Order: sequence, then C-alpha cells, then structure tokens
Amino acid sequence: MERMDRDMPFLLQYEHVAGFEDGRVRILDRRVYPTEVRFVECRDYHEVVQAIADMVTQSAGPYTAVGMGMALAAWQVRDRGAAEQSAFLRQASHDLANARPTTANRYGQITSRCADVAEAALAAGRDPVEAIVASTIESLDRRYRTMQIVGDHLAALIPDGGSILTQCFGETIIGTLIRAVKRQGKTFRAYCAETRPYLQGARLTSSCFAQMGIETTVLTDNMIAYAMEREGIDLFTSAADSIARDGHIANKIGTFQIAILADHFAIPYYVTGIPDREKRTKDDILIEMRDPSQVLCYRGIPNTLPGVKAIYPSFDVVPPHLISGVVTDKGVYVPYLLDHYFDTDVRPFY
Amino acid sequence: MERMDRDMPFLLQYEHVAGFEDGRVRILDRRVYPTEVRFVECRDYHEVVQAIADMVTQSAGPYTAVGMGMALAAWQVRDRGAAEQSAFLRQASHDLANARPTTANRYGQITSRCADVAEAALAAGRDPVEAIVASTIESLDRRYRTMQIVGDHLAALIPDGGSILTQCFGETIIGTLIRAVKRQGKTFRAYCAETRPYLQGARLTSSCFAQMGIETTVLTDNMIAYAMEREGIDLFTSAADSIARDGHIANKIGTFQIAILADHFAIPYYVTGIPDREKRTKDDILIEMRDPSQVLCYRGIPNTLPGVKAIYPSFDVVPPHLISGVVTDKGVYVPYLLDHYFDTDVRPFY
Repeated sequence: MERMDRDMPFLLQYEHVAGFEDGRVRILDRRVYPTEVRFVECRDYHEVVQAIADMVTQSAGPYTAVGMGMALAAWQVRDRGAAEQSAFLRQASHDLANARPTTANRYGQITSRCADVAEAALAAGRDPVEAIVASTIESLDRRYRTMQIVGDHLAALIPDGGSILTQCFGETIIGTLIRAVKRQGKTFRAYCAETRPYLQGARLTSSCFAQMGIETTVLTDNMIAYAMEREGIDLFTSAADSIARDGHIANKIGTFQIAILADHFAIPYYVTGIPDREKRTKDDILIEMRDPSQVLCYRGIPNTLPGVKAIYPSFDVVPPHLISGVVTDKGVYVPYLLDHYFDTDVRPFY
Repeated sequence: MERMDRDMPFLLQYEHVAGFEDGRVRILDRRVYPTEVRFVECRDYHEVVQAIADMVTQSAGPYTAVGMGMALAAWQVRDRGAAEQSAFLRQASHDLANARPTTANRYGQITSRCADVAEAALAAGRDPVEAIVASTIESLDRRYRTMQIVGDHLAALIPDGGSILTQCFGETIIGTLIRAVKRQGKTFRAYCAETRPYLQGARLTSSCFAQMGIETTVLTDNMIAYAMEREGIDLFTSAADSIARDGHIANKIGTFQIAILADHFAIPYYVTGIPDREKRTKDDILIEMRDPSQVLCYRGIPNTLPGVKAIYPSFDVVPPHLISGVVTDKGVYVPYLLDHYFDTDVRPFY
C-alpha cells in the first residue's frame, strides 16, 4: 500500500491519518500536532463528520476519514437487514461527503463508491465493512499513484538547490514531492507560510519536510513579501481544494495574496492537482465560511476584547491570470487552457 | 496633560504606558494585553532597556519608557556627586536610546534632552529626577499636539462611513485619529491585521477602537487580499518606525506586502508620521532582526518540530512607489517629494 511507506513522514502514514479497527475510527488530531500526538476516536460515523468539520484532519486527510467513516457506518448497522443497511449507508455517504462544502464533490466520489461496494458485498453475502475498507484503500492508492505523477512534474520544475514557498499543508503533494526529489537526486530548501488561524504550514508542512531532512524555514503570513525580496524564493506552489475548468482555483485563505505577491516579484506560482470535472467556472466554487471566533483566539487563548469581530473565510479563490501553471498528472497546463485536460482520457482518480 | 484624557482608550492613558514613582518604572505588558492586564516593574534603568528590547512596550510606548527610564537612572544615583550623576545619565541615555536599533534616533532625542535637563537641574541645585519627569511629559505632550494635527489630516482622508485597514499598532495615530473623527462627526469601520508574531493588531489596535465604540474586525495576516476584494476597504494606513527623506519608510513586518496588495487593488495607502531628518535614504534605515524562536511559537506554545528554522525581521521597508502619501503635521506629501518637509520650519517634535 502506497501510504504504508516507512520512508514517509509520520503524518502521511496511512494508519495515522484515520484508521478503522473494531468499530472505531482513530483520527490524528492535526490541530495540535506536532506539539502533541493525540488521536480523536469516533464510534459513530456522525463523529467522523464532526471531526472533519472541526478540522481534526484536513487537506487529504478526509479522503481517508470519509472512507473509514463509511466502514464505521456499515459496522454500526451490521446486524440489520440488507435494505436497512443500504439506506443507512446512502445517508452516511451524503453526510460524510458534505462535512465541508468546498470539497463535497471530492469526498462524495469516495463515499458513494463505498456505498456501491457495500451493496455489492451484501448481495454476494460478503462482509460490507471489509469491502468498504478495501475499496477505500484501493481508492487512496489509486489517488496516490496519480498524485505521484503530479509530484514528479512539480519536482522537475524546482531548480536543484533552489527554494520553494508553500502555503498551508498540501499533504499529498508534499509527500509525493519529497519522494520525487529523492528519486531525481535533487535538493531544495522549503519556506512554509505558517497559515493562520490553524498554522498548518508551521505545524504540518514544516514537520514533514524537516522529518525528511529538507532544510525548512517558517515564515509568519506577513513575511511573504520580505522573503520574496530578500531570501531568494524560486517558486511558489500550493495544492487546491477546488480546481475549476476555467482556471480558477480555491485553496486555503492566504493563497490569493501570495499569488499576487508572486506576480509582483515575478516568481512563478504552480498549483498542483487534478481539475474538478463538475466545476466549470469559479461560480461553481463554494467558499466555506467558518466560525470567526477561531480568528479571535489561538489554541483557546483569546486575543481581543469582547465586541471585536472577525471574519473567517476558509478559502481564497485565485484567478487564472495569477497562476503560472496547473501541474496535473498529464503535465503542466496554462490555466486558461485547463479545460483541455478533459479532451483525452482521464485516469480514475479515487 | 494630553495623555491623561479619560476619553482615551486604556492603553493610551499616560500612566499605563510607563509610570515612574518611588524609584520604579511600571510598564504595561503589551505582550499579554488585553487577555491580562499586567505591569512589568523596573528598579534599574537596565531593566527598562531590557523591557523595551523584549517588546513589553512598543509603538510609541518607548517614548514614555525611555524618559521614565532616565528618571529612574537619575534616582539610582541621586546620592552621588554631580559629575558622577551626569556621567551615569549620559551612559543611561545611550543605553536607553539603543534599546532597539531601528528607532534609536527617535529615542535618543528624548533621552539626551533628559540628560541635559538633569545637568541643568543639578547646576541650579534642583532635583534632577523631577526635572526629567517634567521634561519627558512636556516632550510627550509636544509630540501629541503635533501628532494630533497628523490625526486630523488622516481623519479628513477617510470617507464618512468608510472602512480603513490598519497594520500593527500605531499607538499615537490611533489615539489622535479617534479624537479627530469624533470632532469631525464622522464614523468609520476598522479592519485590523492581526500582525504576527505578537498580534499587536488583534490585541492592541482592536482594543483601542472597540473601547471607543468603533466597529472593529480582526483579519489574520493572510486575509488581506480577500478583504480588499470583498469587504470594501477604502484605505490602508500605517504608522512608521522610520521615515527616510527619500520616501522609503520602515514599519512592522507585513506592511510591505499590504502596500503591494493595496496597489494591486487600487486602494490608497497613507503613511502617518514625521520624517526623520537624519535618515536621507533607505540605506539609513536599519532593520532589527529579532529572535527567530518567537516565530516558531505563540505565547510559549511551540508550533514546530526541532530543527525547523525561522526568520524574524522586525520591520519591512516600503518603497515610495507603493505609498500614496505621507501624512505629516504639514499636510500630505507625495513620498518622492518628502524632503520638502524640511524646506520650512519644523515644529519641535519631542
């Protein structure tokens, strides 16, 4: 299994993301890692939905969590009749897919396949729980193989010995990029924007790079222009939670302004990922607005007096004119021409 | 006394900034305000130097603290001979002025006047401690009167009912702006960039605005482009720790990138303050590099694994082409023409 590779950072190892065993899903709590290594245990699939909504796991973590959440749902109703099990799983598929609105289409591809597989297992007299776990791992492995090609393409764009800037935690691409540069015999330095309010860049991305021996420097989110002017950054790269066919992408709040700054300093910005077939334009991208109180404190310590407000848009939308290229498994696309990705056969992704 | 005004926010009231009494200086610890209201007590002027270096107080706070630190220095040697007192005060003046390099010229104007005043008092048989306290308060009041004119000019630039974006905590201009808009019968909404790593925008600026009844919204430092595109920001304004005569300014890290973003979105950026006569060009601006470990944690909670690095430049330098105008007591200057500020008489500032 791709994710079991012991050469990968702790965070990216499959069973740490969201493991299912004996009627419970254990999810690594990324809100506190690496200060603490703590797992959230779910004994009902609704708790998995809540954990994803609460960002216990994020980035690609929910792709594992929704699959294991489906296994948990099947386990919860294992003693009921086939029709009841099937109805329960369709509901679970809907609930898990919609844990976060911006990526509901992506999660839904995994959960609806899980429901299909469970129904087929029930019809054939096999265990639907086992069938869902196997299907999820197969989906994740397929996704990883495709994303490894993306990682290989991205690695080829990094000058040997150069410096890259990342935003937030593009889990899969960080893992596949690390593998790719090791294979290509390259080195690079990583600058990680810390990414308030949850600091995924400081906590998660920097941990992965550091564990793999890559020189890693954290920047607060207000040091980007300083670093671009004075630290010698060769390229900016981010993953994307949505990639519309018109070349607009959605990614963690902060991505838009880094893209503007990269443009100002003539630093290329490469988005990685697979375009979302069902998102034709930016109007199909839904921005999740999260609880603004999360902006007014950090790890539970309030920063402000009562009465002060905040906004917390979870994502930015970046327009194609600020993107140098979208790195896919089929190569690097001019963002305006991204729709051509669908001109030829598309590799099964999940 | 200007700073005793009870209509002003708590933070800006003179005796909370740095009060001298009975051989000790009490400085409000702005690193924890408003979560906690705590004072750092200094019984030796070196502790005042350290408190400024540690950012117990910042923005305009050190203008009070260095003066009261000089009073403390005089108090420490009050029983020695006049020559010894004088030598001690000259050393204290040097040490206090250089507590932070970027603003050493500004602090030095206050401390050297304190030393002069103390020597005159000694020669006349008066108490040098009292003379220093009186001189410091006089300097602060003079500075406040000048900055009130700047605040009046800035207030005039804000459309009634409009929205402004601030960076970090421009203490004096926040206070004088609040007074000015109240006098002018205007309202506005304030967006405060939170300003990592110490979050002065979230903690200090938002507190002042909120206490004075101004609608205040905190943005994490990575939400600036989002807010500029979607929240309707009419202007960006910041104070400056250095204003060179060639139109380059230094202000808290993050100011440079907000200026680039303001330019991108065609939002005017007004810098407030008085040009530094002795800083001819940007080459005369010294950027203080602070301890990078402060970037790797927040309020003592580490964010990263061992081995991860960081940088912590305390200030950004913003070039004149990104500044719409420098708002001074003599009016608003085109940054390229700022040197003309010195063509006519300059009001005594400290």
